[in-house]
Amino acid sequence: MATDSERNERMEKIVSLCKRKGFIFQSAEIYGGLNGCWDYGPLGAELKRNLRNYWWQKNVTERDDIVGLDGSILNHQDMLKASGHVGGFSDPMVDCRTCKARFRADQLGEAKCGEKPSKSPLENGCDLTEPREFNLMFQTWMGASRDETSVAYLRPETAQSIFVQFKNVCDQTGERVKIPFGIAQIGKAFRNEINPRNFTFRSREFEQMEIEYFCRAQDGLRLTDEWLETRIRFYEAIGIPRDKLHILDVPDGERAHYSSKTYDIEYDFPFGVQELEGVAYRTDHDLKAHSEAVGKPQEYIDQAAGEKFIPHVVEPSAGCDRTVLAILCEAYDEETITDEKGKEETRTVMRFDPKMAPIKCAVFPLLKNKPELVEQAKAIKAQLQPLMNVTYDETGAVGRRYRRQDEIGTPFCVTVDFDTIGENGPDLEGTVTVRERDSMAQERVKITELAGYLAERLR
Amino acid sequence: MATDSERNERMEKIVSLCKRKGFIFQSAEIYGGLNGCWDYGPLGAELKRNLRNYWWQKNVTERDDIVGLDGSILNHQDMLKASGHVGGFSDPMVDCRTCKARFRADQLGEAKCGEKPSKSPLENGCDLTEPREFNLMFQTWMGASRDETSVAYLRPETAQSIFVQFKNVCDQTGERVKIPFGIAQIGKAFRNEINPRNFTFRSREFEQMEIEYFCRAQDGLRLTDEWLETRIRFYEAIGIPRDKLHILDVPDGERAHYSSKTYDIEYDFPFGVQELEGVAYRTDHDLKAHSEAVGKPQEYIDQAAGEKFIPHVVEPSAGCDRTVLAILCEAYDEETITDEKGKEETRTVMRFDPKMAPIKCAVFPLLKNKPELVEQAKAIKAQLQPLMNVTYDETGAVGRRYRRQDEIGTPFCVTVDFDTIGENGPDLEGTVTVRERDSMAQERVKITELAGYLAERLR
Repeated sequence: MATDSERNERMEKIVSLCKRKGFIFQSAEIYGGLNGCWDYGPLGAELKRNLRNYWWQKNVTERDDIVGLDGSILNHQDMLKASGHVGGFSDPMVDCRTCKARFRADQLGEAKCGEKPSKSPLENGCDLTEPREFNLMFQTWMGASRDETSVAYLRPETAQSIFVQFKNVCDQTGERVKIPFGIAQIGKAFRNEINPRNFTFRSREFEQMEIEYFCRAQDGLRLTDEWLETRIRFYEAIGIPRDKLHILDVPDGERAHYSSKTYDIEYDFPFGVQELEGVAYRTDHDLKAHSEAVGKPQEYIDQAAGEKFIPHVVEPSAGCDRTVLAILCEAYDEETITDEKGKEETRTVMRFDPKMAPIKCAVFPLLKNKPELVEQAKAIKAQLQPLMNVTYDETGAVGRRYRRQDEIGTPFCVTVDFDTIGENGPDLEGTVTVRERDSMAQERVKITELAGYLAERLR
Repeated sequence: MATDSERNERMEKIVSLCKRKGFIFQSAEIYGGLNGCWDYGPLGAELKRNLRNYWWQKNVTERDDIVGLDGSILNHQDMLKASGHVGGFSDPMVDCRTCKARFRADQLGEAKCGEKPSKSPLENGCDLTEPREFNLMFQTWMGASRDETSVAYLRPETAQSIFVQFKNVCDQTGERVKIPFGIAQIGKAFRNEINPRNFTFRSREFEQMEIEYFCRAQDGLRLTDEWLETRIRFYEAIGIPRDKLHILDVPDGERAHYSSKTYDIEYDFPFGVQELEGVAYRTDHDLKAHSEAVGKPQEYIDQAAGEKFIPHVVEPSAGCDRTVLAILCEAYDEETITDEKGKEETRTVMRFDPKMAPIKCAVFPLLKNKPELVEQAKAIKAQLQPLMNVTYDETGAVGRRYRRQDEIGTPFCVTVDFDTIGENGPDLEGTVTVRERDSMAQERVKITELAGYLAERLR
């Protein structure tokens, strides 16, 4: 078991690599940073795209029973009143009458007093108010005036746009959607967290990957269990092994009031075991609430059976940024290796599942001052480029180039050497060295077979 | 030339098809709608994904000189002060002292008086104030307090996060980015338009696909011309022909003050010729402004030449929703066809470029009550599903199923008939009918060759 300080040190190394290698930057860093907001750099943007696209592929494209939606981030206030977010989506806060700082009432032990940052408000005996509810939604105004009628919110979850478009989706897709079926969405959501923390884990702006899966009441509990298993297999497929996941069967009294079953899928982050995804059986709560608010039943019509009803809903709701962070944490590894001269060195390697790796393949000429090698390496890069994210590197010794690719998790490096161009005879002409990231094993592969060789191993 | 009323009618048909078929819904429609915000339904979400992914493929994956970024939507107020958005990003507005309505000063002729909606404020002789500047950004507060220090904005453009992360991107990518190079981003931006209009064209929430292409000062004008041509070719590749585009070389005095060259790429929408994309030479304005604001030069370091400088920037900035709308408008077609019985009917067909089509292929059994046909059709659908967005339909006559697919722009329909299952002898066993959307031509294709046949035609 790693100690707390080992876990902290590991997390610091991951955060540092993310900045240094262009995975994740603090938003507006040159302006001192925007707390709780993050920008994904070149490699982070690719990693996040890979995750989004794979999720969509598995949950929408490859399924007959799920369709997509892409709703607006700005949400109508009446819709969020009906969903309970305007009235109830809040944390209890206390103010200090002396230092004027505001704290979450349930986190006073961890908070720091505004005047004595070495002490928590409790240790310091601060003059605290009674807890008051503080709404977590970001509010703005839409239109020319700023008054109660023009209030709009940044959505606190993507789910509500699915519920309010439920009937439109049923009406349009006609033949296609028959209960049980789901509507899936990937998109940004926003919560004005008082204490964003743990790198990107608890941020104010975050991306969700949500499915609302509509079914008959009698199937709700069974489908919740099935979705839990489906989602665990998804995490395994992107490189997060089952034994690093913890499944919390949320007990009575701790679930949302409308949910009769909720599982939290948690990951063992260096900063603790924390939630990646909730699989919640939401009953018919949401569609009923919107039905009442608009005065029209948001029903499903079963043409064949001649019946109408408000369906129940199972919601697998995953955090995209949290999953990216879990992928980064899981991938990070250091190992001691011995080079050809017998010298020991530490190799930092991001052991991404190849599907998630931002760059799939790096192509090197053995030497940059040999035009035949450079030309051939560039030709191979150009050949692979329409098929995958590929990079070219000619700087420094090949060993150092391998290390650079290891650090960003590139699964394969292809080197063009003198054998490739036939300088050592015809036997190996037209072949390249392919080096695999994790095993560091090298294989000779024909250039004509390279695309197929890589495609097979990148699946 | 189409008359105005023909163009209006055409636009109404497109809007109606978008709702009916699940391309685009009004946001929060059941709550009366959120003006200027739209939700993409199942088909619209796929169309938009196809556009985003193709843009990324062509501008990031397939280029050596452009890397991606994915920045936060919430923006630091100091960053938008430096960029000029807090002080200057505004429209002139006038208020009516009688009816209290607010109008854009430059659109008074089109506006409607709050008390006499049949007249414009000018016709009505309303009691108007002098024009005042109205900032177009959506404002919110971040953190526990609501005061001047906690103000944040929804970004009015994705560009600024690229400029403020310029140095981080240069630092991390090391070998990879050498001037000229670009940083690309796709993401939502927000403008509090007073009069959202023309369907999704002028909305308050919209998605941008932007590149900031950094170069030396002497290359700025040449690269602006080159980017214009590259971008026109992009539109051609997604099915918008060059002769439907208008290139506006924005004259002196109408460009942004910092731009010494701007082209607008406009499309001939049914509601008029309107901008899809701007290709603007922004000089070194942005990086200079941020350098001054933070007191640190946002420079590029040329290691080889031993020099440092603030690069100039060429910005091809495309509207993703506007391009989706152009694709929809361009694709919409009606034609009169004669069926086998000599009866004339109108065929509505969305002639999408196959790359953009939401669904690539529909698979039908000729009859739904023949298990061998159904089984074979479902097997073909399952075989294609990991490769492309495919659908299965068994309801109604095949002719009606073709019409349904025509209306949503599916390029290919595959029918499993009695020949397929060998009921009419061995000659055509194992083949299916593939019907192409635009020509309505049919071909027999072997099932074993179907995936390759389609893949080739969907590129």
